[in-house]
Amino acid sequence: MIKNIDHISIAVSSIDKSLLFWRDILGLEIVHSEEVESQQVNTIFFKVGDSRIELIEATDFDSSVAKFLRRGGSAIHHIALEVDDVNAMLLHLRLNNVKVINDSPVEGAGNKLAIFVHPESTSGVLLEFYQSTSI
Amino acid sequence: MIKNIDHISIAVSSIDKSLLFWRDILGLEIVHSEEVESQQVNTIFFKVGDSRIELIEATDFDSSVAKFLRRGGSAIHHIALEVDDVNAMLLHLRLNNVKVINDSPVEGAGNKLAIFVHPESTSGVLLEFYQSTSI
Repeated sequence: MIKNIDHISIAVSSIDKSLLFWRDILGLEIVHSEEVESQQVNTIFFKVGDSRIELIEATDFDSSVAKFLRRGGSAIHHIALEVDDVNAMLLHLRLNNVKVINDSPVEGAGNKLAIFVHPESTSGVLLEFYQSTSI
Repeated sequence: MIKNIDHISIAVSSIDKSLLFWRDILGLEIVHSEEVESQQVNTIFFKVGDSRIELIEATDFDSSVAKFLRRGGSAIHHIALEVDDVNAMLLHLRLNNVKVINDSPVEGAGNKLAIFVHPESTSGVLLEFYQSTSI
């Protein structure tokens, strides 16, 4: 049911400043960038093998990413695993009493459907399940 | 030069307890387990697409993973990127004034050579470069 690590997302105070390491020194290729208004973030994706590394920065002081950065500074924010059917995964998680943050799938970057699992259920990882990205 | 996200490593207080979610509920397959004495950890790896998710637990109170857990609890500990030549990467990073933790490559899980980049240089991520894993 789980196909791939779709991406690892790193919350940063400034995407521009972080490009020095991830793009310029490591030479990773940017394959997508987008403002995701629903989540109040700007985001860019680097291709790494069959997966991607995402950098996200807040566009609003009250966004969840801005709050995350104020709590602990730049750090890995979440992991996204690609699944065939995000609704089936949501049902499966609920049946197993896993703490899912969303009542139903939300739109993530690339207009794909996503749900998020609370770190309480995963040993401390904010975990996203992401349906069939084609970015 | 960077081939793949080799693995994402999650530091947990107890691998046994964490298996409930990662193995039993998600159904991920364990492909490797090992005690890495040099790093004072037990480790297991799940296959996820062409990458892996690693769970690590401390085997010694004074190990770096035990200290990590005491600072903030279970959380993502590091990302490992696979490279062709870890010594070439080490040289490249040094020439670019990146803060590398190791003076020379160390043995990681699976007896492969690895170096670690300090989070100061990467926007908050402990980043491992890992040479040609075959696990």
